[in-house]
Amino acid sequence: MEFTILKKSTRSKARRTRIVLPHGTVETPVYMPVGTNGSVKAIKHQDVSDMGYRLILGNTYHLYLRPGIEVIKQAGGLHQFTSWPHNILTDSGGFQIFSLAPFRKIKEEGMYFRSHIDGSYHMLTPELAVQLQCGFRSDILMALDQCTAPGITEKEAVKAMEITHRWAARCKDEWMKCRDQWGGNLFGIVQGNFFKNLRKESAQFINSLDLPGIAIGGLSVGEEPSAFKDFLAYTCEYLDENKPHYLMGVGTPEYILEAFEDGIDMLDCVYATRIARNGAVFTHDGLLAMKKERFATEFIPIEEGCNCYTCRHYTRAFLRQMFKTGEIMGPMLATIHNLQFMYNLVEDIKKSIDDDCFETFKKDFLSRYTSGSREE
Amino acid sequence: MEFTILKKSTRSKARRTRIVLPHGTVETPVYMPVGTNGSVKAIKHQDVSDMGYRLILGNTYHLYLRPGIEVIKQAGGLHQFTSWPHNILTDSGGFQIFSLAPFRKIKEEGMYFRSHIDGSYHMLTPELAVQLQCGFRSDILMALDQCTAPGITEKEAVKAMEITHRWAARCKDEWMKCRDQWGGNLFGIVQGNFFKNLRKESAQFINSLDLPGIAIGGLSVGEEPSAFKDFLAYTCEYLDENKPHYLMGVGTPEYILEAFEDGIDMLDCVYATRIARNGAVFTHDGLLAMKKERFATEFIPIEEGCNCYTCRHYTRAFLRQMFKTGEIMGPMLATIHNLQFMYNLVEDIKKSIDDDCFETFKKDFLSRYTSGSREE
Repeated sequence: MEFTILKKSTRSKARRTRIVLPHGTVETPVYMPVGTNGSVKAIKHQDVSDMGYRLILGNTYHLYLRPGIEVIKQAGGLHQFTSWPHNILTDSGGFQIFSLAPFRKIKEEGMYFRSHIDGSYHMLTPELAVQLQCGFRSDILMALDQCTAPGITEKEAVKAMEITHRWAARCKDEWMKCRDQWGGNLFGIVQGNFFKNLRKESAQFINSLDLPGIAIGGLSVGEEPSAFKDFLAYTCEYLDENKPHYLMGVGTPEYILEAFEDGIDMLDCVYATRIARNGAVFTHDGLLAMKKERFATEFIPIEEGCNCYTCRHYTRAFLRQMFKTGEIMGPMLATIHNLQFMYNLVEDIKKSIDDDCFETFKKDFLSRYTSGSREE
Repeated sequence: MEFTILKKSTRSKARRTRIVLPHGTVETPVYMPVGTNGSVKAIKHQDVSDMGYRLILGNTYHLYLRPGIEVIKQAGGLHQFTSWPHNILTDSGGFQIFSLAPFRKIKEEGMYFRSHIDGSYHMLTPELAVQLQCGFRSDILMALDQCTAPGITEKEAVKAMEITHRWAARCKDEWMKCRDQWGGNLFGIVQGNFFKNLRKESAQFINSLDLPGIAIGGLSVGEEPSAFKDFLAYTCEYLDENKPHYLMGVGTPEYILEAFEDGIDMLDCVYATRIARNGAVFTHDGLLAMKKERFATEFIPIEEGCNCYTCRHYTRAFLRQMFKTGEIMGPMLATIHNLQFMYNLVEDIKKSIDDDCFETFKKDFLSRYTSGSREE
């Protein structure tokens, strides 16, 4: 995988990079929409592509359970199956087992769990996680890791980190074996819970595996914002700077700006699309809940000047009508807006780094965004 | 309203006509997708327009209750509010009160009913029905009528028919008064339940009002298919042939072909979009239920050769995945296909009438369609 640092901010760790992947080149910072079951929810892949997105995320846990690896392999891979011609990053399934499975047991061998769909038992090993993602023909594959929640003891955190490291090494071995079948790129994941010594140790270990990229897992899992910021900045200090840095499962515009400032290159989150389905839409002045009574006669777009399809064709009053009447059109139109907003935000961020004024951009954006409404 | 008969079939009453409406010209036969709350469900109006549709239907009952006439008036009318630049026909609200309201009482004045949304009481008079539709700036307005179910006595049917006639005359009076505000076209509705003498009497009365168009109501309301065919053909015999004929709330490909053969020019139905949301899709070989196990590894489009967006981009296997995982994308993609199928079917019908071979087309289409699967 070709990775080039294009530009570094002089006042922070913010940077611009280029990653050459099997399905095209991606410039960073980049935000990845999430396509859990093979579809970014409520929006056609062509519309996602038309906005400019070139990298989306798929969830191995969901795709493994439904439709299953054999179906996706027979389809010719996940790109073919889902009609998405650009890059796909898949997670390993570990985080979804942590957050969704009704039962899970960590064994040295792998994660033993029950499906949240039909209660069936499964074992996800590091080797299987890699084989599944190779079967998907994922452009970026993630190593199997054990995510932990805030509040555990250091002893528990060490145990989870160490198994994450052993699994990462096993993932690397399996990936080396599979490389002649498919040229996807494996990223390792830093864990260590909320213990700085462990975060440092984990970053150093994952660096040492010399994989194409490095991710940070186990942040934005319920901790205080101050802990998030502290542990993010601290962990970023120890990441190999010649590798792409991926912060998993983040997040809001606030968290995204924080992450990019610390030198994160890539991130993904369901936030933009999930809140859209509930009627919450981004504006530069904060979040608006489209169901609110006051929008009933607001015959203006969600945000004046927004170039998204929704804002070019529909008013807040119409959006409110769609959400009040439970029409599928509500989630559809709000999803378009929120994904376009995120795309535009990241484009603005890229430009600000090119112009070496990211820190000013961040301050100005947040000052306006956080003083507005928060109608999530 | 300019209405021209373009071509008549020599072997049946099937015909081609042209209707000039305020938002453009419509050639018939025409099928109208239904946009109950201001949106054809699960599809953007632009996509509906891109398929070629130029006339859709809105439901006055729903729009009156939510968002209310004042909101739509303030928006500049229903076209403006819903971002649909072409023609809109609105029903009067009578049928929805008949089928949805938890309580309704027919009075000479109008229909007294409770909202299915919040239980509030309302009175829909013929005058209000016209005023609402003028406020929407509907291209075609429907008179308020009283729909009845099969199985009532002749006495009850006479009573409902007569009130329908008095209401139609009041609608006409109100429409004449409103015409300087908005140049929409009022259609009268033939009722008479399943009594031929009443159907004849009703057709003759509605003809006598000399409105721009004539609709048939109260068919396809639960009667046997043989009764539907019999009463449709019988009623059509008495419609003024120099007016457009609109059959309300029909229907399936089988019923549509039947109706066009009897000289119906326009019809609407939720069938195509409703079954789509449940995963049932049209093919020339019948209906397919996309959730079925056998589609899991069918990497072919819903129908080979179909020009719809869904068939050009996605496989049956992907559709199945979307429906099995409950993704909004399932209803979105199936709606696109079914509306394109209906559009193409009507285009084929138009061509067959132009070529004076409609009856052969009908026979061939039905022979293949009805011998296939019926997985609704």
